[in-house]
Amino acid sequence: MEPAPVYLDNNATTRCDPKVVEAMIPFFSEQFGNASSMHAFGAEVGGALAKARKQLQALLGAEFDHEIIYTSGGTEADNMAIMSALETQGDRDEVITSAVEHPAVLSLVAHLEKTGRAKVHIIPVDSKGRLDMEAYRKALGPKTAIASIMWANNETGTIFPVEQLAELAHQAGALFHTDAVQAVGKIPINLADSEIDMLSLSGHKLHGPKGIGALYARKGTRLRPLIRGGHQERGRRAGTENAPAIIGLGKAAELAMEHMADEQTRVAGLRDRLEKGLLQQIGNSFVTGDADNRLPNTANVAFEYIEGEAILLLMNREGIAASSGSACTSGSLEPSHVLRAMNVPYTAAHGAIRFSFSRENGDADVDRVLEVMPAIIGKLREMSPFWRERDNQAFNPTYA
Amino acid sequence: MEPAPVYLDNNATTRCDPKVVEAMIPFFSEQFGNASSMHAFGAEVGGALAKARKQLQALLGAEFDHEIIYTSGGTEADNMAIMSALETQGDRDEVITSAVEHPAVLSLVAHLEKTGRAKVHIIPVDSKGRLDMEAYRKALGPKTAIASIMWANNETGTIFPVEQLAELAHQAGALFHTDAVQAVGKIPINLADSEIDMLSLSGHKLHGPKGIGALYARKGTRLRPLIRGGHQERGRRAGTENAPAIIGLGKAAELAMEHMADEQTRVAGLRDRLEKGLLQQIGNSFVTGDADNRLPNTANVAFEYIEGEAILLLMNREGIAASSGSACTSGSLEPSHVLRAMNVPYTAAHGAIRFSFSRENGDADVDRVLEVMPAIIGKLREMSPFWRERDNQAFNPTYA
Repeated sequence: MEPAPVYLDNNATTRCDPKVVEAMIPFFSEQFGNASSMHAFGAEVGGALAKARKQLQALLGAEFDHEIIYTSGGTEADNMAIMSALETQGDRDEVITSAVEHPAVLSLVAHLEKTGRAKVHIIPVDSKGRLDMEAYRKALGPKTAIASIMWANNETGTIFPVEQLAELAHQAGALFHTDAVQAVGKIPINLADSEIDMLSLSGHKLHGPKGIGALYARKGTRLRPLIRGGHQERGRRAGTENAPAIIGLGKAAELAMEHMADEQTRVAGLRDRLEKGLLQQIGNSFVTGDADNRLPNTANVAFEYIEGEAILLLMNREGIAASSGSACTSGSLEPSHVLRAMNVPYTAAHGAIRFSFSRENGDADVDRVLEVMPAIIGKLREMSPFWRERDNQAFNPTYA
Repeated sequence: MEPAPVYLDNNATTRCDPKVVEAMIPFFSEQFGNASSMHAFGAEVGGALAKARKQLQALLGAEFDHEIIYTSGGTEADNMAIMSALETQGDRDEVITSAVEHPAVLSLVAHLEKTGRAKVHIIPVDSKGRLDMEAYRKALGPKTAIASIMWANNETGTIFPVEQLAELAHQAGALFHTDAVQAVGKIPINLADSEIDMLSLSGHKLHGPKGIGALYARKGTRLRPLIRGGHQERGRRAGTENAPAIIGLGKAAELAMEHMADEQTRVAGLRDRLEKGLLQQIGNSFVTGDADNRLPNTANVAFEYIEGEAILLLMNREGIAASSGSACTSGSLEPSHVLRAMNVPYTAAHGAIRFSFSRENGDADVDRVLEVMPAIIGKLREMSPFWRERDNQAFNPTYA
C-alpha cells in the first residue's frame, strides 16, 4: 500500500476546512443575492456577513467589527496599508520595513523607491532572524509615514515584537502596520490592547478559502482605498462583497479559536519532534530562526551542501510536500532572501527546507518524514561536489 | 401556496450555477495546494487552472490565453486598466470615459482628477444612452492615455460600439479599455478580431463565483500591476491564485457559451414580453435606453411620478427582486446617474426600475410580474403628490 501523502506546506496554503466549505455552500446558489441590493435576496446575505465579521473580530481581539476591511487576500491588504499611509500622512514619505518581509511588502516598497514615491529603510535582522531594534529606532523619524514589520516570518516562523514596534512607531508619529498573514490563527492576538494601527491577514493560511483576506484598520486610522468604485466596506474597498468567502473566513476564524490551544501544544510538539529527529539522524544540518520565539507550526531546517529544490523533488516522490522559501518566489534559483538576510552560509541556505504544520497533521506525518529524510539527504550529498569538498575552504562559495 | 420568488436582478449578481459550484468543490479541500508550490499538491491544481484559462479565452475570443489576468473582480480590473495606462503612456495624462460608466470607473477618474493625476473627459450620451461620437472624437488627442468606455450599460443595457471606439482611440495613439462586466456571457465577443486593448469582466455576473474577475490585456500591451508582490499571473497581479474561483469562472464561461443562443432568443423574448405587457397595462411609463441596440436581458422601465425605492419595496413583498440603478450605488437618494446623463425627466428617472433576466428565468416570472405590477404602481400613484399634480408644470421639479 502506498503511504498516505504528507502535507507539511501549511505556510504556503492550508486545506480549506470541510466545515468552512459547508458554511460557504449555501451562499453560492441559494442565498446568492448581492449584499448591497435592496430586496430579500440581498438582505438575507447581510445577516450572515455580519456574523462572519464578528467571528473574525473575535479572533483578532479587535474593539470594533468595522475595523475589518475585506480584501482579496493578504497581498492586497499589505499594498493597501502602505499606499494609504503614504497618501494620508502629509509630507511624511518614508517607509520602514524589514529585510525578511514577504514579497507583498518588499516588491511594493522597491517599486515605490524606484519611482521616487517613497524613501525606504530596510531594517536588517541578526543570524536568528531577529530585528535590529537599534536600526529600527534610528530609522524612525519625523518623515516616517509608516513602519511595516511582519508579525511572524513565513519561512522561519520567527516572531517579531510588533506591540513594542508599534509603540516606538507612534512615538515618532508614524503609523504601524503588520503583515500577520502567518500569525493569525496560529498564535493568540489581541489588537484592542495593542497600538497596532493596521494588520493584514489571509483566509487560506488558516484553513479558510483562497481569494479573501482582510485589512484591520484601527478606528480613527485615516485610509485611502486602493480599489475605487462602489460604497462597499464603508467606501474603503469597492467591489461586490465576496459573500461566500467572507462567510468561510468567519467560520475559519471561529475554528482557529477552538484549535488555538492545540496549535500551541500538540502541533508545536509535532514540530519539535521532527526537528529533533532530523538533527539527530542527519549531520551538517541545523534549525534556522529564533527557536525561543517563533510560530508553533514552523520548522526551517538547513541541510548543508545540497540543493533545496532537489530535496523537495525527492520528498515529492515520497508523497511529502514541504517548501524552500516562499511559494511566491518559487522558480527563482537564488536562495531565500530571508536566509540571506540572516547571513545563513550560502551552502546551507541553498539546502534549507521549511516544514510547516497545521492542526490536520499527526504523529504519522512526523514518522514518515523521519523515515525517508536520511536516505534523501544522503543520496543527494553523495552526488554533491560541495559535500565532497566541504572541508576545502577555497571551494565554499559566498554571496555575490 | 406562496408564489415562487422571482429574481430579476441578474445585472446585480447571478445565481452561481450548481455546475460551477460542483467544479469548484474539489479545489477547496482535496486539490487545495498552492498553484505556485513545487510539489504534487501544487502541480495537480496547475492543470485545472490551465483548462479554466482556456475556457475563458474561448468565451472572449482572445488570441492567447496569457492575455487573461485574473483579478478579484470587475472593479479591480477597471482600476488596474486605467491606472496602468496612466503609468505606461509616457506624458499622456488624459482619460476619456462616458457619463454612464459604472462607479468602478467614474469614482476612480473623479479621484484622479481631484488629485491632479489625470485630466478627465466625460463624454455625454443622448436621450437613448448612446455615446456622443462627435464629442468622443474631439476629446481624443495627443495627450490621451486611455479611453475607457463600457461595452454595455448595467442599467439600461445599451450597447456601445466598442470596436469602433477602439479604432478611433488607436488613431490618436491612445489605449482603449472597455468595462465589459455586463456584456461578457450575454452577447458574443471576439476580441482577436477587434482593436480593444483591455477588457474587464466579473465572474458573478455570468453565473460564476463572486470574488473573481479578469482583465484581458492584448499581447504587447504595456502593463503595471495594481497589486504588487509575488510572481503570479506573470508578474502582473500578485497574490496566491484563487484556484477554486478561477476554475469556477472557467466553467461559467463554458456554460455561457452553451447558452449564448438561448440568451439572444428566449431570454430576449421574455424581456420583450415583460416590457410590452408593462407598457400596455400601465400608463405614463416608458422604456429607457436604446431599444435597437442593447443587451438581450435588460429592461429599464420608468414609471412616472413615483419613487423607485417604494416600487422595489412593494415588489419585494411579493417576492420579486429587481433594482433601481446599480447595487453599487444603493442607499443613495439621488436618481441614477445613468438616467440623469440621458436627461430622463426627474419625475421619471426617480421611478425607473431595472428588470434583468438570465437563462434561469422563465415565462412564469414574466407572468408574475405582469400580475402584480399594475396594482403596485397604481397604489403608489394614489399616494403621490407628483401624480396628482402631474399636469401642473409649476410642480414639476427639475435637476438642480
